[in-house]
Amino acid sequence: MFAQLRPKPAEFHVFDTTLRDGSQQEGLNLSVADKLTIAGLLDELGVGFVEGGWPGANPNDTAFFAAMADGAHALRSATLVAFGFTRRVGMRAADDPLTAALRDSRAPVACIVAKSHDRHVEQALRTTLRENLDMIADTVSHLRAEGQRVFVDCEHFFDGYRENPAYALEAVRTAAEAGAEVVVLCDTNGGMLPPWVGEIVTEAAATGVQLGIHAHNDTGCAVANTLAAVDAGAMHVQGTVNGYGERTGNAELISVVANLELKYGWPLLPAGSLQEASRIAHAIAEVTNVPSSARQPYVGLSSFAHKAGLHASAIKVDPNLYQHIDPAVVGNDMRMLVSDMAGRANIQMKGEELGFDLSDRELASRITGRVKDAEAAGYTYEAADASFELLLRRELDQLPEYFAVHSWRVFTQGHPRPGAEGETDTECTVRLTAKGQSQRVVGEGNGPVNALDHAVRNALLPAYPVVGRFELIDYRVRILDQGHGTDATVRVLIQTTDGRRAWTTVGVGQNIIEASWEALSDAYLYGLIHAESPAPAAEPAIQERVAV
Amino acid sequence: MFAQLRPKPAEFHVFDTTLRDGSQQEGLNLSVADKLTIAGLLDELGVGFVEGGWPGANPNDTAFFAAMADGAHALRSATLVAFGFTRRVGMRAADDPLTAALRDSRAPVACIVAKSHDRHVEQALRTTLRENLDMIADTVSHLRAEGQRVFVDCEHFFDGYRENPAYALEAVRTAAEAGAEVVVLCDTNGGMLPPWVGEIVTEAAATGVQLGIHAHNDTGCAVANTLAAVDAGAMHVQGTVNGYGERTGNAELISVVANLELKYGWPLLPAGSLQEASRIAHAIAEVTNVPSSARQPYVGLSSFAHKAGLHASAIKVDPNLYQHIDPAVVGNDMRMLVSDMAGRANIQMKGEELGFDLSDRELASRITGRVKDAEAAGYTYEAADASFELLLRRELDQLPEYFAVHSWRVFTQGHPRPGAEGETDTECTVRLTAKGQSQRVVGEGNGPVNALDHAVRNALLPAYPVVGRFELIDYRVRILDQGHGTDATVRVLIQTTDGRRAWTTVGVGQNIIEASWEALSDAYLYGLIHAESPAPAAEPAIQERVAV
Repeated sequence: MFAQLRPKPAEFHVFDTTLRDGSQQEGLNLSVADKLTIAGLLDELGVGFVEGGWPGANPNDTAFFAAMADGAHALRSATLVAFGFTRRVGMRAADDPLTAALRDSRAPVACIVAKSHDRHVEQALRTTLRENLDMIADTVSHLRAEGQRVFVDCEHFFDGYRENPAYALEAVRTAAEAGAEVVVLCDTNGGMLPPWVGEIVTEAAATGVQLGIHAHNDTGCAVANTLAAVDAGAMHVQGTVNGYGERTGNAELISVVANLELKYGWPLLPAGSLQEASRIAHAIAEVTNVPSSARQPYVGLSSFAHKAGLHASAIKVDPNLYQHIDPAVVGNDMRMLVSDMAGRANIQMKGEELGFDLSDRELASRITGRVKDAEAAGYTYEAADASFELLLRRELDQLPEYFAVHSWRVFTQGHPRPGAEGETDTECTVRLTAKGQSQRVVGEGNGPVNALDHAVRNALLPAYPVVGRFELIDYRVRILDQGHGTDATVRVLIQTTDGRRAWTTVGVGQNIIEASWEALSDAYLYGLIHAESPAPAAEPAIQERVAV
Repeated sequence: MFAQLRPKPAEFHVFDTTLRDGSQQEGLNLSVADKLTIAGLLDELGVGFVEGGWPGANPNDTAFFAAMADGAHALRSATLVAFGFTRRVGMRAADDPLTAALRDSRAPVACIVAKSHDRHVEQALRTTLRENLDMIADTVSHLRAEGQRVFVDCEHFFDGYRENPAYALEAVRTAAEAGAEVVVLCDTNGGMLPPWVGEIVTEAAATGVQLGIHAHNDTGCAVANTLAAVDAGAMHVQGTVNGYGERTGNAELISVVANLELKYGWPLLPAGSLQEASRIAHAIAEVTNVPSSARQPYVGLSSFAHKAGLHASAIKVDPNLYQHIDPAVVGNDMRMLVSDMAGRANIQMKGEELGFDLSDRELASRITGRVKDAEAAGYTYEAADASFELLLRRELDQLPEYFAVHSWRVFTQGHPRPGAEGETDTECTVRLTAKGQSQRVVGEGNGPVNALDHAVRNALLPAYPVVGRFELIDYRVRILDQGHGTDATVRVLIQTTDGRRAWTTVGVGQNIIEASWEALSDAYLYGLIHAESPAPAAEPAIQERVAV
């Protein structure tokens, strides 16, 4: 009854370019540390290839490849790819320092972009059509000789094919003949529609070259264009998580993969990985600090949410009547918007995980209500397990009082000097009681939270020397209720380590200092509670590292 | 060379359901006034049909139709549509009050939803397949007899066709034979892919019935599915502006229409209307208060923004090398982003955009160096045009001194109370000179930045009453160098408006208060520089409204 979808080809590449093309997005700027974190998350997702950036051209990217090469961040299953260009006009590839940077990146694969649109060769590259083909052949064969696998991105392929199909195909053939393993057809300007992509990829596939697809979303069809190319024979799909990318973004890779896994029935990711897709998409959004779209296919917060009404009663009969897939398959949840976001069952399971018995139905319901209220106020416990445990302990009356804070004060002053940077001082005082001893301590730091951290640490040290081992390793701020300017609600996540494990606490308030203080004092409290217990083996660091 | 796209059918419907299906989106709640405003905007856009809501079922919707019927809000060219259901099981349509409400709405068209999926008839409607067909026939013929044009939405048509194609087609035929002008095939759960839609619509079109398409975006293919249905014979497309809707949303109507107008070459909207698309999409987002996606096809703030330095130099040669359409056609603009990936060409174009002559090569290189240094330190100018202009003015010695700040202080204190929320106070003082007058002013607020904002405003008011119109509308914080805890560098973006336009400034520092102060004082400085200049027509407010 349905159009026969193509059977899975023997070899198929899921190629992620979040770190390269995704970072072309307006407002998205990744540090080396951000890139390392995202590379690890992509590896967890199980993509085949992670394109990390353009070594030699961007200092951050060069540093990223150096960090990857030192082994501490080795990818479990993904293959690292370095991006570059064909050699410069009129220079041998062997003499081009940017070509050498590809080899020096020590990435096993080089993905180089080549022109395949005649007008781009003549007007942007300002060289001859012949020289462009020589550049492709020379660069590919040089990189191959240096020991790298090579993929070639044919930039503006579809637009080029429209104007000069023979030349566009010649670029494809040249790359393949020089040793490119895959030639990726790029809809660089994003203006294609699926029937056009299908037709052109079919023509290109007649060359016998292994083809890939790289689509942008300018017509709102990036995912469909990618699938159309796959239907026409492509065996390699490029995309970015959360659809990041220049202009309207790239093909959203999780949507592409979920469609291929769930609609085509192709196993592409390692078993169980697709169930991590929602968590990983949100974790990457935390790193990029680009707010996630609640409507994002498969992984969006709203993607399986139903407004109350007609659907609700029918959903009780059979949820599959109202959802196209089981949301658990992509790690998402059906939500009824009138009912609990966090269900009782979830809370019970989470409590058990932390070692608390919540089997009492009434207790579990009361705690679920507390979580719901707190989440409505802006708290999030997905990332802040430590704060969730403190909430549980409070409800269960199992919260020891290690210290009592009476007051805290933060004072910041600036002396701007015209035409030069001024000076800023921050000082704070904390008054608290620990083990019956009252302490009034002053702290300073390069910012208010840093100063508070120093003060509270100094105040606790006499009673609890263990806090000397505590270290704040991550501090994140998110403005909720955007559009309210500085009146908005602020959420702060603080991650702390004692050298053996790390934990995350959350604070919320209209005042950023107040929210930070809440997260900070909870961080110390949690750390003290667990100071004597052994570090649990079953708590992988990465789970705590990423604020979801 | 391209697949022949279908020629435009003689009759073609652009049917908007923003006010009905769009309002199923999580967090989107429209008042009657909101609905009236949006209906007017949709009419300006030139859609053929505006589905306004479900009279008789939602009080707001009933009131909306009453307001539309009184004539004051008459649509210029669009036809108003009332949504409803087939009559209740076991009742005559003539006796069903919800059917009567459709007539009473005085909308010229009724669009009623009917079941066409056998399992939904039996399990959700809990009636027989026969009775469901009778309900369709009875309701359609009754409404026709009462004088309304009738469209029928076949709910879950595609899923139903998969399980029982004969019954799904029987529902289509029954509706048409009873007098439905168009039968709309709905992918209610959104799980379809374009080849499936194409195949099923082709089968349904063999009935000879005029068909429509209603797609959701659960596979990321709503726009492509809509086009696939059109290719297979549909003459009616349903969608919502900005893609609002339940779960992942509906097909984004402007993308669908722009694709049909610009890629298929079909004139659908009144001449000149498509050029209003960006403005109208953003205006509707203002009413719904759902933040616009900067990456939205055609109308997004970033949709024609370029970051790559390589692109920039080629864009100077021919902008069409790097864009799939002329952005002016949809009322959008090409924008060059200033970023560390940018070279001198970008900076020169950006300067020109802002009205500064940077053609001097040495000057442009010096400024490019300054931008690169600042970006390396954590600044970003992509989102902060105002700060970029201040940087330019500083380099060009064109920065007037409206005020000189001597010092500022912020004081925050908390009094935690055990087991309860404590109190937090923030107070600040600012000392500055404006127009020769020294001012020392105190401000308070619910947070340190809010307090600083109040203080600086009060200090400037005597000299510059215009600052009374300035309002902070967005405040974003990004922690750079994650992993350094509270020692990390902080970047703050502040967006300010004077009611006519909005501008964004950036501040960076290790101290969040210091970074906020920098962005804040620059916001006031920029606002004062531009206070007397007219709001530029070529700078639509919306372009500046979105930070990041």
